[in-house]
Amino acid sequence: MSEAPAQALARLVGETLFAHDVASNDTMGMVLLACEPGRAVMRMVVKELHLNGHQICHGGFIFTLADSTFAFACNSHNKNAVAAGCSIDFLKPGKLGDVLTCEGIEQTLNGRHGIYDMKVTNQSGEVIAMFRGKSAQIPGTVIPE
Amino acid sequence: MSEAPAQALARLVGETLFAHDVASNDTMGMVLLACEPGRAVMRMVVKELHLNGHQICHGGFIFTLADSTFAFACNSHNKNAVAAGCSIDFLKPGKLGDVLTCEGIEQTLNGRHGIYDMKVTNQSGEVIAMFRGKSAQIPGTVIPE
Amino acid sequence: MSEAPAQALARLVGETLFAHDVASNDTMGMVLLACEPGRAVMRMVVKELHLNGHQICHGGFIFTLADSTFAFACNSHNKNAVAAGCSIDFLKPGKLGDVLTCEGIEQTLNGRHGIYDMKVTNQSGEVIAMFRGKSAQIPGTVIPE
Amino acid sequence: MSEAPAQALARLVGETLFAHDVASNDTMGMVLLACEPGRAVMRMVVKELHLNGHQICHGGFIFTLADSTFAFACNSHNKNAVAAGCSIDFLKPGKLGDVLTCEGIEQTLNGRHGIYDMKVTNQSGEVIAMFRGKSAQIPGTVIPE
Repeated sequence: MSEAPAQALARLVGETLFAHDVASNDTMGMVLLACEPGRAVMRMVVKELHLNGHQICHGGFIFTLADSTFAFACNSHNKNAVAAGCSIDFLKPGKLGDVLTCEGIEQTLNGRHGIYDMKVTNQSGEVIAMFRGKSAQIPGTVIPE
Repeated sequence: MSEAPAQALARLVGETLFAHDVASNDTMGMVLLACEPGRAVMRMVVKELHLNGHQICHGGFIFTLADSTFAFACNSHNKNAVAAGCSIDFLKPGKLGDVLTCEGIEQTLNGRHGIYDMKVTNQSGEVIAMFRGKSAQIPGTVIPE
Repeated sequence: MSEAPAQALARLVGETLFAHDVASNDTMGMVLLACEPGRAVMRMVVKELHLNGHQICHGGFIFTLADSTFAFACNSHNKNAVAAGCSIDFLKPGKLGDVLTCEGIEQTLNGRHGIYDMKVTNQSGEVIAMFRGKSAQIPGTVIPE
Repeated sequence: MSEAPAQALARLVGETLFAHDVASNDTMGMVLLACEPGRAVMRMVVKELHLNGHQICHGGFIFTLADSTFAFACNSHNKNAVAAGCSIDFLKPGKLGDVLTCEGIEQTLNGRHGIYDMKVTNQSGEVIAMFRGKSAQIPGTVIPE
């Protein structure tokens, strides 16, 4: 597919998936900033609902932000893809009011299997977490071809 | 510490942490079933709020269940501990109404660093996900010594 | 397959694979102590050839010991299986003359995909490293069925 | 430190470490192509000694190539650093005669802890494996300051 149609398709895939994603959208309060071929950007503001017993953002929700970004990036080619495994390293805590931005980039896509790297930063540009996800494509498309 | 006091302390630590954990408790709807020295068990029922764009439980929330269980297990000695890094493998999807149980067990605790394994199963005993977490103890205790 | 034939098959698979494994056998000097269904045990003595620039066992060779053990455990059912991904945590260094033993155990085998945990200990029983591997079965058998 | 001295120091650190690294040098046959601040490149040709029971390069030795590259990259600032944990994904097998090149790059260095990404490619530019390592600085320097 040439550049412009691939971009338009990725954007449509992103909007479609996000519209039905109660978890990312309603529950977590994420915003989808970009969905391009092999790349996505999402944002989430840390609110009271995200805080754990140490009164910092639950690491699971930082993971969830990265995992959603991963999902958009690896589905951006309009071939259904699921996460097979992920790893995350936590570098700094997320605090109440922090604006967390996650950028996800495709590192390799080899047949059905891809590797994607997500980086979560705060409003000061500090790296909060780094996440690597492995995807597996499954039959079907996100939107009808 | 002898067996019985260590058990009682772990339980108190668990109850204290959980009482202040908005994320696990209010937002995700988890229940803490056990907190013992180096071990914890938590449960979460998959509800509408957990569903992603594929209408299955968001992988990030399965991670969050495991990450919370990890936190209780690695704080159970009443020494503050945080997650340094985690990895997860997703084996089966969590579906609406599924009852997910996560058991977390300390594999090794070597100075300040520990390794913990979490296993998430559904109501049929099928393994949904396996999670490994590395913890680092930091100064301070969960409850005053 | 009933217990005894499965044990005998796993042992035969292990011996067959090991006989052709120049890397584990000749280059690294490993010994295969056990190959059972879903389990294997290997041993390696740290020699001069294993030392890195810090004069301790190269972490890559500790990984290699675990990776070989993983291979025997995940091929033990006589269905060809390969490593898809692995992670390792290094807990203590391996020193010249240390006798490193690695036990690998199948945690789950779900269709073609399995998860195996390897633990490397030294002659004092101290944990040197923990390794988790994900396997994928591919067509074919190790020895003719 | 300004650019040129940092480059010269990294190069000297690399040469010093490599000269004493029996494992990478003599046993595995690696070559150090570059050691710069936060970056290293190594090469290894797959020989008979690297082959496992499937007659392909032992995954442990692909890991070892990446782990050595990681070591040079994370010691390049002349502060002693060790690997705390690593993960690898195997994408394609390494075959007899393949020329494997590994490039390692520092992604983040936050206090004592760093994250480095290594990519192993073959002579056709195909990605063989991707490796992520977490380092921890320990007291001391590689060469006297």
